[in-house]
Amino acid sequence: MADLELIHGLLTPADSKILLLVLDGLGGLPIEPGGLTELEAASTPNMDRLAAEGIVGLHQPVGPGIAPGSGPGHIGLFGYDAIRYQIGRGVLEALGIGFDLQADDLAARGNFCTIDSEGNITDRRAGRISTERCRELCGELQQIRVPGVQIFVEPVREHRFLLVLRGDGLVEGVADTDPGRVGSPPLPVTAERAEAEATAEVVRRFVDEAQRRLAGREPANMVLLRGFARLPDWPRFPETFGLRSIAVAQYPMYRGVAKLVGMDTEEVGPSRDDLFAALQRVWPGYDFAFVHVKETDRAGEDGDFDRKVSVIEEIDGYIPAIVDLQPDVILVTGDHSTPAVLRSHSWHPVPFLLWSRTCRSDEMEHFGERWCLRGGGGMRRSEDLMPLVLANAGRLAKFGA
Amino acid sequence: MADLELIHGLLTPADSKILLLVLDGLGGLPIEPGGLTELEAASTPNMDRLAAEGIVGLHQPVGPGIAPGSGPGHIGLFGYDAIRYQIGRGVLEALGIGFDLQADDLAARGNFCTIDSEGNITDRRAGRISTERCRELCGELQQIRVPGVQIFVEPVREHRFLLVLRGDGLVEGVADTDPGRVGSPPLPVTAERAEAEATAEVVRRFVDEAQRRLAGREPANMVLLRGFARLPDWPRFPETFGLRSIAVAQYPMYRGVAKLVGMDTEEVGPSRDDLFAALQRVWPGYDFAFVHVKETDRAGEDGDFDRKVSVIEEIDGYIPAIVDLQPDVILVTGDHSTPAVLRSHSWHPVPFLLWSRTCRSDEMEHFGERWCLRGGGGMRRSEDLMPLVLANAGRLAKFGA
Repeated sequence: MADLELIHGLLTPADSKILLLVLDGLGGLPIEPGGLTELEAASTPNMDRLAAEGIVGLHQPVGPGIAPGSGPGHIGLFGYDAIRYQIGRGVLEALGIGFDLQADDLAARGNFCTIDSEGNITDRRAGRISTERCRELCGELQQIRVPGVQIFVEPVREHRFLLVLRGDGLVEGVADTDPGRVGSPPLPVTAERAEAEATAEVVRRFVDEAQRRLAGREPANMVLLRGFARLPDWPRFPETFGLRSIAVAQYPMYRGVAKLVGMDTEEVGPSRDDLFAALQRVWPGYDFAFVHVKETDRAGEDGDFDRKVSVIEEIDGYIPAIVDLQPDVILVTGDHSTPAVLRSHSWHPVPFLLWSRTCRSDEMEHFGERWCLRGGGGMRRSEDLMPLVLANAGRLAKFGA
Repeated sequence: MADLELIHGLLTPADSKILLLVLDGLGGLPIEPGGLTELEAASTPNMDRLAAEGIVGLHQPVGPGIAPGSGPGHIGLFGYDAIRYQIGRGVLEALGIGFDLQADDLAARGNFCTIDSEGNITDRRAGRISTERCRELCGELQQIRVPGVQIFVEPVREHRFLLVLRGDGLVEGVADTDPGRVGSPPLPVTAERAEAEATAEVVRRFVDEAQRRLAGREPANMVLLRGFARLPDWPRFPETFGLRSIAVAQYPMYRGVAKLVGMDTEEVGPSRDDLFAALQRVWPGYDFAFVHVKETDRAGEDGDFDRKVSVIEEIDGYIPAIVDLQPDVILVTGDHSTPAVLRSHSWHPVPFLLWSRTCRSDEMEHFGERWCLRGGGGMRRSEDLMPLVLANAGRLAKFGA
């Protein structure tokens, strides 16, 4: 509804503090229609207490019927229109492995693939080679030299790798070389616009040399590239919303998306205690902290309903520690739904719980989809949560006189 | 959602009549979380009867999290997108004191301020001089002559005044002279675009002469001007919605906003009886009457929960008289929320009650935030109420074949 400039223009100083707790893929589905979702099935006395004092509702990432990836899911929670602010595939791949992308880097997602003696693709994923093998082959491609350009070839997982080209004047506009199907050769490297011709020539030299070096290394004897992209030049979150902001997350992807919009990031150890200890450590220095919990989504993707319930219950146990930090606004939600029965991200609206002293509480006493559906938060677009959070934090002045 | 042209194109003739009763700042908050809001606490048997037969819901002015001023709040209720249709500050100031702004007038909000011997501002509000003193000084500035331009300097309240320049060719595009802070001089009068240079020269001459005349009159020895604006050229309400329309309001601001969109206006005496007597008087000649009650907002701004409750109850007493007028559609709502506990306009969605014979009533038997949350009116943007009202009045034809 409201755009970033409008909200920015209404900012008014306050020393209030905001906590955003994201349980990745929080929204769920019952195992059998009519049953309880993961969140409804979980025993969450602490979140229920916040729900009783606060408001619950549902938010829809991207748009009705659309299941978002992690990037757009979080971009929406951060207050940005996920359709307008799309992260290039190459950049997402870099964020996912924590590659420190620079302002002038051009990144692409790479696949090792198999081509036959005619040059036609027979397997777009090279038989899903092991990550170890991927690492070796990336080491080989890392040797490629193109004058004036620094090249990074980083393994991701199985057949997937990240290609980063660093050098002056590299631009977006190089077309994908992955035809998206077998039986034909990789597409030649082409520029989608005249300004990208020099960049396309760099990529062409890399691909030609890669093919030469990979010859005979079946099944991984060729590469496919897509999603050439540079870091986007977006409004920064801390300045746009007037919040000293930090992301506390265990996975590079989520720190990466937060960094993309200018948040500071805190790297933390692998345990749950590590995560919340890090929050306590950084809290005094910030107005806004985003804490990311991955395991809800992972359990959902694994189709493990019970484990997703357990993770939610474990996180609930940390809520008193969060409340002890005395945030003025607490928002607990997910970036999307990942119902265990679907084993994937889904389009279902995502439950949220917003607590503040001035939120006009509804009569819902539990946090879960069926209560959220009737709650005072209503059903809203993900990107409309940030203005609501800012208002509850006393950080927005009146619009018009 | 739907724009004015779309709705206008669907108009179909009907002799139905519509009553919009605005209780300014109606939406509220409980004193303690979990308690009752002002409207919930009020005993409103007559509104409750309408609610039982009609639908209740919530509307969100401007956008999620945004607290609107009176201008945007009403503009939304009148069916206009309050972000697209913004009223300039100078125009709002004119509306607020009932100044009869003409099509070619240029209006600005003025502050008397204090400058030191170096010319730097030491107080942007001149110590909030009395309104009486403001009136005297406005009389002095009213003497200023600029060839070809008629000048009006009208006191508003304390240090605030209205400046209106009347003459051919005056345009918008003169920058504010108020730097928004102390310690530096007022900004020089500048044109934001070349076409506004002649207008800026007129303002410059006014400001120079004002400074000369105010010299030595500390604390009000200089003026600051901002929000130079002309009457907007917007679609008119009566033609857009096919309704002979009138505003019945005790305060100039609300008659002014209604006049801005082309409604007739009825000036009325100060008592509650005066207000509703005026409604009865004008009702036969109009299809749409907007009645404005200010005291709910005033009580909210004063932080007086009980008085706001009383005002709501008193207004409830006039509902039978309204029903006796036999309107086909009755909409009771506010232009925004003004919770007494916040002592200010707020972002909270505003309760509304829509009554007609064809509204498909919900099961809510009371008018209050908690019932509105579950009511058949849903949660919608303020500007979407007018199409709904028109439909209930049998004034909108089918869209498409």
